[in-house]
Amino acid sequence: MRNLKLEIEYDGTNYAGWQVQAHQKKKSIQEVIEKTLQKILREKVRLVVSGRTDAGAHAKAQIANFKTNSVITLNKLRLALNGLLPDDISISKVEEASSSFHSRFDAKSKVYRYTILSRAYPSGLLRGTSYFCSYPLNVRLMRKESRCLTGEHNFKSFQASDKKERSSTRKIKQLKVARNKDLIHIDIEANGFLYNMVRNIVGTLIEIGRGRFPEGSMKRILSAKNRRAAGPTVPAKGLCLIKVKY
Amino acid sequence: MRNLKLEIEYDGTNYAGWQVQAHQKKKSIQEVIEKTLQKILREKVRLVVSGRTDAGAHAKAQIANFKTNSVITLNKLRLALNGLLPDDISISKVEEASSSFHSRFDAKSKVYRYTILSRAYPSGLLRGTSYFCSYPLNVRLMRKESRCLTGEHNFKSFQASDKKERSSTRKIKQLKVARNKDLIHIDIEANGFLYNMVRNIVGTLIEIGRGRFPEGSMKRILSAKNRRAAGPTVPAKGLCLIKVKY
Repeated sequence: MRNLKLEIEYDGTNYAGWQVQAHQKKKSIQEVIEKTLQKILREKVRLVVSGRTDAGAHAKAQIANFKTNSVITLNKLRLALNGLLPDDISISKVEEASSSFHSRFDAKSKVYRYTILSRAYPSGLLRGTSYFCSYPLNVRLMRKESRCLTGEHNFKSFQASDKKERSSTRKIKQLKVARNKDLIHIDIEANGFLYNMVRNIVGTLIEIGRGRFPEGSMKRILSAKNRRAAGPTVPAKGLCLIKVKY
Repeated sequence: MRNLKLEIEYDGTNYAGWQVQAHQKKKSIQEVIEKTLQKILREKVRLVVSGRTDAGAHAKAQIANFKTNSVITLNKLRLALNGLLPDDISISKVEEASSSFHSRFDAKSKVYRYTILSRAYPSGLLRGTSYFCSYPLNVRLMRKESRCLTGEHNFKSFQASDKKERSSTRKIKQLKVARNKDLIHIDIEANGFLYNMVRNIVGTLIEIGRGRFPEGSMKRILSAKNRRAAGPTVPAKGLCLIKVKY
């Protein structure tokens, strides 16, 4: 049986997230791609993903794999997928993977980018892919405060309070805060992410950047291991999975 | 009476264009902004625009002005507009203009950008703001061929055949063809544009870039003064008005 690996780009605006959610009227990205694959390959297909993305979040290069008996060529499958999928989901790569390849278990790290539009007025063109902050942000301080997050830590303070996982320890390999004109990009690479971790870290950095949390707050919040110590969860629309490393 | 000048950004995807069109179910951008202004100022408002944009085309900095008796402050008006307008239209500037200022008559030139996504597979994230070309394009040749368009010429070959204007002569002040990874940007600055002029020039450049029209075609097409000599009209979604100069 072949094991095929997809690299997927999507605008998550109109979806319930990667995975089907109960009580959600919107479709999930997984369901849309699986149905399209089934139409093309004429067999039942189950996608294994590197990690689910939230409702409204985007991906530049999500990775998923699936087993198939089909003999379709890689190029033909990519063309058929891009022809049949809705415009807001596209397939950039279709590759042959080893039979043991698993999109989630084999991922060494993932990189998420959060985009803040930081200026006095919103943007009609960037509304779906950025979070608009009208108050001034001290990017230098945000960068300085973010430094203590790099490395292996218990990120319980940044984990959605209703989610329980065996361990809240993750390793942030790199965290960059960069301003490019009106946009602030926060790129976080980690070996894994807790539920809402990026959105809670960014929400906390914004509180620091606007002066609501004083200097030194991030260290205190990290060691508190309590969700209530951190800032709010920023909207999913600013979030994009940009790379999965294997 | 005050004469107020607006700088407007919009994603034209869901609109019938700047101006109300007969038999169009979608709203026009003008109508949406005028209605919002009327709600805020409680008086009838008529916007004068630098130039209409097509259904589906975008603007980074469209300019429009209107007369009002209101004493509202500029900052308050901008906040109210951005609060009440739909997310895909935003106001970046509200300024006091001289009583004689006219957005269209006073414009010295306008700059349009056309964005081509040039790679083998489409993009879920850029689908609404670029035109996807899956065939390879010779950007160097496109740039070379575009040179003859700069200056004052009769652009009849690039004018929509069903439109009649007093004169088809316009002056292109600058035309740039630049590639940035998978994106090709074609920026055209002119003292005025004929209907579909940018989209027809780009359609012709694409035919040249993909080898369907031989080297030297652009010069021949320009002097033909016949719409049928040029290439097809590319879709409006790749088009964005990026600057109006006064």
